Amino acid sequence: MPHYNADHLKVFCQHIFGQLGVDFDNAYKVADALIQADLEGVGSHGISRLTIYAKRMKEERINPNPSVSIVKKADSVLLVDGDNGLGQIVSVRAMEEGIALAKKSGTAAIAVRNSNHFGAASYYCQMASEAGLAALVLTNSPPGIPPWGGTKAFFGTNPIAFGFPTGTEAPVLIDLSTSVVARGKIILAAKQNQAIPKGWAIDECGNETENAKEALNGAVLPVGGAKGYALALAVEVFTGVLSGAAFGPHVHNIYDHSDQKANVGHFFVLFDIEKFMPLNTFNLLMKQLISEIKETPTKAGVDEILYPGERRHREWQRSSKEGIYLSDELEQELIQLGEELGVAFAKK
Amino acid sequence: MPHYNADHLKVFCQHIFGQLGVDFDNAYKVADALIQADLEGVGSHGISRLTIYAKRMKEERINPNPSVSIVKKADSVLLVDGDNGLGQIVSVRAMEEGIALAKKSGTAAIAVRNSNHFGAASYYCQMASEAGLAALVLTNSPPGIPPWGGTKAFFGTNPIAFGFPTGTEAPVLIDLSTSVVARGKIILAAKQNQAIPKGWAIDECGNETENAKEALNGAVLPVGGAKGYALALAVEVFTGVLSGAAFGPHVHNIYDHSDQKANVGHFFVLFDIEKFMPLNTFNLLMKQLISEIKETPTKAGVDEILYPGERRHREWQRSSKEGIYLSDELEQELIQLGEELGVAFAKK
Repeated sequence: MPHYNADHLKVFCQHIFGQLGVDFDNAYKVADALIQADLEGVGSHGISRLTIYAKRMKEERINPNPSVSIVKKADSVLLVDGDNGLGQIVSVRAMEEGIALAKKSGTAAIAVRNSNHFGAASYYCQMASEAGLAALVLTNSPPGIPPWGGTKAFFGTNPIAFGFPTGTEAPVLIDLSTSVVARGKIILAAKQNQAIPKGWAIDECGNETENAKEALNGAVLPVGGAKGYALALAVEVFTGVLSGAAFGPHVHNIYDHSDQKANVGHFFVLFDIEKFMPLNTFNLLMKQLISEIKETPTKAGVDEILYPGERRHREWQRSSKEGIYLSDELEQELIQLGEELGVAFAKK
Repeated sequence: MPHYNADHLKVFCQHIFGQLGVDFDNAYKVADALIQADLEGVGSHGISRLTIYAKRMKEERINPNPSVSIVKKADSVLLVDGDNGLGQIVSVRAMEEGIALAKKSGTAAIAVRNSNHFGAASYYCQMASEAGLAALVLTNSPPGIPPWGGTKAFFGTNPIAFGFPTGTEAPVLIDLSTSVVARGKIILAAKQNQAIPKGWAIDECGNETENAKEALNGAVLPVGGAKGYALALAVEVFTGVLSGAAFGPHVHNIYDHSDQKANVGHFFVLFDIEKFMPLNTFNLLMKQLISEIKETPTKAGVDEILYPGERRHREWQRSSKEGIYLSDELEQELIQLGEELGVAFAKK
């Protein structure tokens, strides 16, 4: 089994970005965000994205050295233009500015336009937690979910994420898409000629389907029916409308052949806990809440109740020791990318 | 069919509150919030709550004349103590202060503790919309939802609400509980000896049940499974932990016989749109977004795609003309309440 040392993979990513013209600091930031996702078992938002990011930077569809700028500023508001940079570069910068503002004012809302896929939303929640802030993180994404009653994908799978410090290494991290399931799972089932569970997707006529190929011509359903539609819409308004980014079907997919920039929008809201109560008190209350949750009687077959963020923390602990698993396919893809750009692939 | 004029019902509520010692302004505020819910077809949060509110005020479990106070203040943060007043009195006051703060600073987060049931969350989103603000409104509530894998209700059905102006009379209003269904629907099914759909609730062993009575001994399921659990937890942290209110099973139910105050917590986040872009521009973009949503092809049997808030606006238009329908049971209950407190019931 090809398990790779996380630091070696991070250096590989960093060198790849360097070869593409990304400056040293930013290359490190993106590499860190990608490998963090792999360490936490969220490989879909990790190094598996490197090849497409590289391809789009080579084609100049994504700007390797964006001039991220603050377009508007108020006591507790920032409007950020990402200059079509990688979402991680834009978002880490926006978060750094936002954390400083929230520490001063108590709350900060940061709207970002002209960005790209920013990886896992939980990464920014973690940044906030480490600074003693609670966070709400939203992003839009290319069309995946139809409006309720519609047959055509309109909203992105628009994740909603929250982070809360706990005074331990493992903050509460909530990161959920407003779709029932990631579109990637349907793509995989279609490739393998497998059926998908009822309730995941509709065909192009809007009927529920268990046929993965039909589902790919239709749309992924919102979580909880009309409730998920409403949540996806709320995310779209904050990230796509209030930021001045693209919204709905106007958000472009970097996996599509096109020369359009994605113009993804993000929205971060940060809350300085110290402005409400001492952080120590908050941490004690969080520990009480978590231990009371864990004391709830469980149903048959459930050994333990986990809080959101706990599983990914355990996964992080495990893979920090054992390394990150890459599929043969991904390993080959990365070796080839390294060869194209003159970067030796990571040692195991 | 007993349909009542909304203004007459509002005056009746106001007089009832007056007899219970609520001052004139506050009596008007609560009456307005309750009747607004009835007008919008959300009777569960309307005048049907009057009798229990009155009972608890008579017993001094709810304070009719709270000294709502601002305990902490920062540039964009308010921490409010509701002094155990009716949730509507406390929340309207918190919103008034919060709107002023958001207009100044750009964003405001208002955490409220020591409050009670505040009616429909959408009411506060409407207040914000009318002031040109986007809003996120959260509240906790007595236990209804188990943690994922658990068998016992722990979190409230903790609603999440959003409001966005549209430049029309009908803002986007999203108001959803993090449970699959309101517990009231299960109580009703149990009374009528009817089965409930699979997926609504679990019995006391944590198994899914279609038996309404067994469900009442168990718990209501979170919307979208583990995702709803995570959302209910996020709401609980903002409303119950960060505010210093009660959380989880420590929130008391005013329908239970007990002498405990509820100590409900709320959390409001307000965003001044003008700090991001001119309100007119925002309204134009919202109109574009809404019209594009409505142009999405619909599945068979769906005439029209609605945006969240549109149905309740139509209901409001209809019942403003035709009056509010009260069931015979509710009508009798209110007549009796009026007799007890020396207030003539509303004319039709």
